[in-house]
Amino acid sequence: MTRYKAIIAYDGSGFFGYQVQPEKRTVQSEIEQALQKMHKGDFIRVTASGRTDAGVHAKGQVIHFDSPLEIPGDSFRMALETRTPRDISFRSVKAVDSDFHARFDTTGKEYRYLIQCGKLFDPFMRHFAWHFPYPIDLQKMEEAVTILLGEHDFTTFCSARTEMENKVRTLYQIEMEQVNDELFAITYRGDGFLYNMVRILTGALMDVGQGKLSLDDLKKALDAKNREALRSKTAPPEGLYLMNVFYDEFGK
Amino acid sequence: MTRYKAIIAYDGSGFFGYQVQPEKRTVQSEIEQALQKMHKGDFIRVTASGRTDAGVHAKGQVIHFDSPLEIPGDSFRMALETRTPRDISFRSVKAVDSDFHARFDTTGKEYRYLIQCGKLFDPFMRHFAWHFPYPIDLQKMEEAVTILLGEHDFTTFCSARTEMENKVRTLYQIEMEQVNDELFAITYRGDGFLYNMVRILTGALMDVGQGKLSLDDLKKALDAKNREALRSKTAPPEGLYLMNVFYDEFGK
Repeated sequence: MTRYKAIIAYDGSGFFGYQVQPEKRTVQSEIEQALQKMHKGDFIRVTASGRTDAGVHAKGQVIHFDSPLEIPGDSFRMALETRTPRDISFRSVKAVDSDFHARFDTTGKEYRYLIQCGKLFDPFMRHFAWHFPYPIDLQKMEEAVTILLGEHDFTTFCSARTEMENKVRTLYQIEMEQVNDELFAITYRGDGFLYNMVRILTGALMDVGQGKLSLDDLKKALDAKNREALRSKTAPPEGLYLMNVFYDEFGK
Repeated sequence: MTRYKAIIAYDGSGFFGYQVQPEKRTVQSEIEQALQKMHKGDFIRVTASGRTDAGVHAKGQVIHFDSPLEIPGDSFRMALETRTPRDISFRSVKAVDSDFHARFDTTGKEYRYLIQCGKLFDPFMRHFAWHFPYPIDLQKMEEAVTILLGEHDFTTFCSARTEMENKVRTLYQIEMEQVNDELFAITYRGDGFLYNMVRILTGALMDVGQGKLSLDDLKKALDAKNREALRSKTAPPEGLYLMNVFYDEFGK
């Protein structure tokens, strides 16, 4: 058996999320079906760096799987590209050490949240960004970032349904960029992210930018370690992209 | 009755084209339904600058309709924006002279054709560009443009199903732009376009760029005034955008 690592991109708008669910169209099930076709009906389990929710996109999701086939990476990539639907794309496939693990070996992730800030709703971005046509105070948001960066217990910033016990994570970077008149992007880099964490952080940052949440209240909410301490709404899934998964010491 | 002119944008991927067809989801029928709701069930006919095919997009389609309602343009815009699905967007609505006609008064149009030229297929662009990952000779294509510009009988470059008798049109401008590593755009401006004309022109230009069609053969095909004289395939609908409709002497 050879272990393969693949980097994949997907438009999340047509999926009930990454992870297999009975009778639902998911990214994982489409890939496992494609692998099964390539392996004469044998089921091949796929493991990802983590799941993404319904409507959430990926440009650099990482998966691994084991296969008895010995195929050069690029041919494997082409074979999977042609056997998966057009909303999933294989960026690369390569053979790796048999102990590589797409989830357990991650050292960090990068997410991007896209906001369509133009006054008029852009129908072409309806599945790809959050329409937020209100004026924002960027300087206030930069100050909020300094509160959030670093190592914290992020209980306040994750879904109450999070199963993970340890909610301490480190945010290395939050970068805000006015891409053009229509688009505003927030990029997050950290050693790990809790369930809904990026969407809740984005909701809070936009509230700060809009003057609905003071820096003081943001700090208090963080310190409270309680999801109830934050009133901000969770930003919608369509603006969120998993950009990169890291397996090395990325600029720690 | 007041005549209103509206500029609309739509993502064509979910429609069977612009024009009403029985039992099909079309842009026109969605707008007429929205107007009907606003007019207590009275049917309001909408007239566009022209139709667009299934899968073709618009960023600046123009329509007109007559309404007994006297509403400021921006309120009318909001009312229609909220009553139409999210893949149609109203950019502006304004009252105009009662003899304004969205189709008969056009002096020209601008179309844009988007090509995803990156080697790897981009799943996010699958409804929004033609994936054409082959090397192209831009200089050859620029020479092809000089053959096509100006007034010609474009019988060779329209669908054999075109009903229009007079196939003489003037192309003012064909602009090619490498937007970034992933995107190549061709913008066409002319006094009018025949059925499938932009898609057939694009197919021919890309054939020239790929070395499949010589400039000589392109010239001969144009002169032949016969659809059969051109072997190039029609570029797919998903790359095509109706960008602007002109009602004045636009740079003639």
